[in-house]
Amino acid sequence: MLTAKRNLVRFLPSARSMAHDAGAAPAASRATWVDRWCLAALERAVAGVPVRLVLWDGTALTGPPAAPVATVRIHDRRALLALLWDADVGFGEGYTEGRLSVEGDLVGLLTELSRRLPAVSSPSAARRERRTGGRVARARRNVHHHYDLGNDFFRLWLDDDMVYTCAYFASPDATLEQAQQAKLDYVARKLELRPGERVFEAGCGWGALALHLARHYGVTVRAWNLSGQQIHWARERARREGLADRVEFVEDDYRRISGTCDAFVSVGMLEHVGRRYYAALGEVIDRTLDRAHGRGLLHFIGRNAPARRSGWIDRHIFPGYYLPSLREALEGVLEPRGFSVVDVENLRPHYARTLACWLERFERAAAVVTGQFGERFTRTWRLYLAGAQAGFASGQLQLFQVTFARTQLDGLRWTRDALYR
Amino acid sequence: MLTAKRNLVRFLPSARSMAHDAGAAPAASRATWVDRWCLAALERAVAGVPVRLVLWDGTALTGPPAAPVATVRIHDRRALLALLWDADVGFGEGYTEGRLSVEGDLVGLLTELSRRLPAVSSPSAARRERRTGGRVARARRNVHHHYDLGNDFFRLWLDDDMVYTCAYFASPDATLEQAQQAKLDYVARKLELRPGERVFEAGCGWGALALHLARHYGVTVRAWNLSGQQIHWARERARREGLADRVEFVEDDYRRISGTCDAFVSVGMLEHVGRRYYAALGEVIDRTLDRAHGRGLLHFIGRNAPARRSGWIDRHIFPGYYLPSLREALEGVLEPRGFSVVDVENLRPHYARTLACWLERFERAAAVVTGQFGERFTRTWRLYLAGAQAGFASGQLQLFQVTFARTQLDGLRWTRDALYR
Repeated sequence: MLTAKRNLVRFLPSARSMAHDAGAAPAASRATWVDRWCLAALERAVAGVPVRLVLWDGTALTGPPAAPVATVRIHDRRALLALLWDADVGFGEGYTEGRLSVEGDLVGLLTELSRRLPAVSSPSAARRERRTGGRVARARRNVHHHYDLGNDFFRLWLDDDMVYTCAYFASPDATLEQAQQAKLDYVARKLELRPGERVFEAGCGWGALALHLARHYGVTVRAWNLSGQQIHWARERARREGLADRVEFVEDDYRRISGTCDAFVSVGMLEHVGRRYYAALGEVIDRTLDRAHGRGLLHFIGRNAPARRSGWIDRHIFPGYYLPSLREALEGVLEPRGFSVVDVENLRPHYARTLACWLERFERAAAVVTGQFGERFTRTWRLYLAGAQAGFASGQLQLFQVTFARTQLDGLRWTRDALYR
Repeated sequence: MLTAKRNLVRFLPSARSMAHDAGAAPAASRATWVDRWCLAALERAVAGVPVRLVLWDGTALTGPPAAPVATVRIHDRRALLALLWDADVGFGEGYTEGRLSVEGDLVGLLTELSRRLPAVSSPSAARRERRTGGRVARARRNVHHHYDLGNDFFRLWLDDDMVYTCAYFASPDATLEQAQQAKLDYVARKLELRPGERVFEAGCGWGALALHLARHYGVTVRAWNLSGQQIHWARERARREGLADRVEFVEDDYRRISGTCDAFVSVGMLEHVGRRYYAALGEVIDRTLDRAHGRGLLHFIGRNAPARRSGWIDRHIFPGYYLPSLREALEGVLEPRGFSVVDVENLRPHYARTLACWLERFERAAAVVTGQFGERFTRTWRLYLAGAQAGFASGQLQLFQVTFARTQLDGLRWTRDALYR
């Protein structure tokens, strides 16, 4: 927990300047003509989105829309200027610092915004793009920032198996628990695993997939992760469940993967690799995957076309992240090594639903989270989960599952029927 | 038929220099040390391929391999030099001109060669790459070259429905006829067509898909094609089968498609578009596809990574063709317009089997073909079909079916189960 708390200091860089909480009385004076001019500019920027913007003294340029999704109250001038300067960071930090508040449907508002606005750009975006991913030391810091917040925190709102990636809702009434188990099976079936085979996993979270594959598919797994807390948890679980002889968890970077495997799988790691290191990941897969019958699966959040990253997410949630288009992932990782793309599936609606489940559980645990981490932390995570759900709901974000194989692999099944029996 | 015969003159540019037919006595003198040196260089180039190379006077540097796939007899010095200069064109033209012959398993030999040799390069390849696709007039000539050989010719070896693209063998014992019908249904299901919708098809061949969709899925179809003979056939069929009010066949280039549609489909046309015109195709799709619920499917032969084209295929089979990697197709056509990739399936083994069916039927009709078009024509088409089968069998060629949709389309089914019921 100490680690997590030290983390929070970096995590919230403007803590010292936090003026007030949501709901506190605004400190600013009455709105001037400059404030009204700024508000008008903001109104133009969100034209078409059924939202009402209201300043600290009640100033609003429009009445409530016919079917408003939400009202955004801007509590001081700094929040107003920040929104104009960089809508993404300004909204995120304004929200978490309580300089603006949202009354109504937060997910609905973010979905509408994300549907109607082009991918957000900001003055510092271009510079940040170059810093995605990172060498091992930076990658370790980036992972630490998010995944080492404390296993207890994630237990509050993830499923029992601690799967922190998109679930697969095979039937419309599936629970999150069922959908995460279905996802693990789906990945295994796409890989066409056979008993006795050896699987490498890059970025294994709390180990759910590795343990599932060993338990149900008779394979041995070696799984890599840079998060000390996750690896510790995964090893404990493997020991407790009697799988330690078949699943090995390694606390190290994907670039240091060595040995050979029949199947290579990575679920939710490519987002952290960064474009500059796609070639390195491709090299690792090529070096380790069996030349004759090797096949693999990459599961990652992507985009329809390259887009600027969110400065707020980069600063507060996933430092160094980058979400590639399917083309960028193929170009960077698989094509240079001549891998054959066998199957691509876009599970976008499944991630919107997964995030809705997480957010609902998170809200139920919000008092506990706030008690441990403070109000600002709760608002940060609420906004991140709501924003991600909105991104998938609106189509700004995609979830690609890419199955690939060696060029000349003939042993794969001819049709996909078996995936659905 | 006259058109087809005129075509053949351009089709076989070195007809005037054709020295002898396969099986004719070699005109060349005894092999010299230079010939042996050339033969040794060739042997090195095909090291590992279980083939025996024999010169016109019986000279061979190696005994028969343990399990030979074939013996290649090189009947004269010109064929030998041509093989060394440009293996792809040299082999193709040597084979069709009867300057070399293959005893044994032609498909097996080509599969082994394609498995073990890198994509063939030739001195003139770089220049040719730039000439792929073409403006409308060139595109029309390119299409005319191949598809206007006469409908009677293609009837000799295609299925009853005249489908000249990869079939879908839903079960291992399916006939070609069943597999082609299954493919048409598969495409329709991937597009999630609803009765009353409007479908555009770019490059419709003899119209089988368009007619199938109108008949079985209650949609109206407008289909474009540059081949006059194919369009004539398709229109006749639509009239005969009472579908002329629901399917319109337009003899024109894909760049001139106008109007709006709910679904856009193109099966086996992208190969002829050429990289330079991918953006134009993307623009056409974007311009015509319904903004709210539009979706589409591109079905095309591709590669795992960009590779040089076969000079022989470019010269004799598909002038101006280009087979993109999946990445190139996404980068050129779909990503610039922000389309969302929903599903990609690689049907490579299905195309190897489709080609095996075609080749078998072609061989049964070979005497008829030779009677109409001559021995060289028969050898050209045999080599093309065998080489394509080998390309898919070896993994040098892929068959991608890419389903895509507008960014924000939410109406699509969540899982792929329904495709397999």
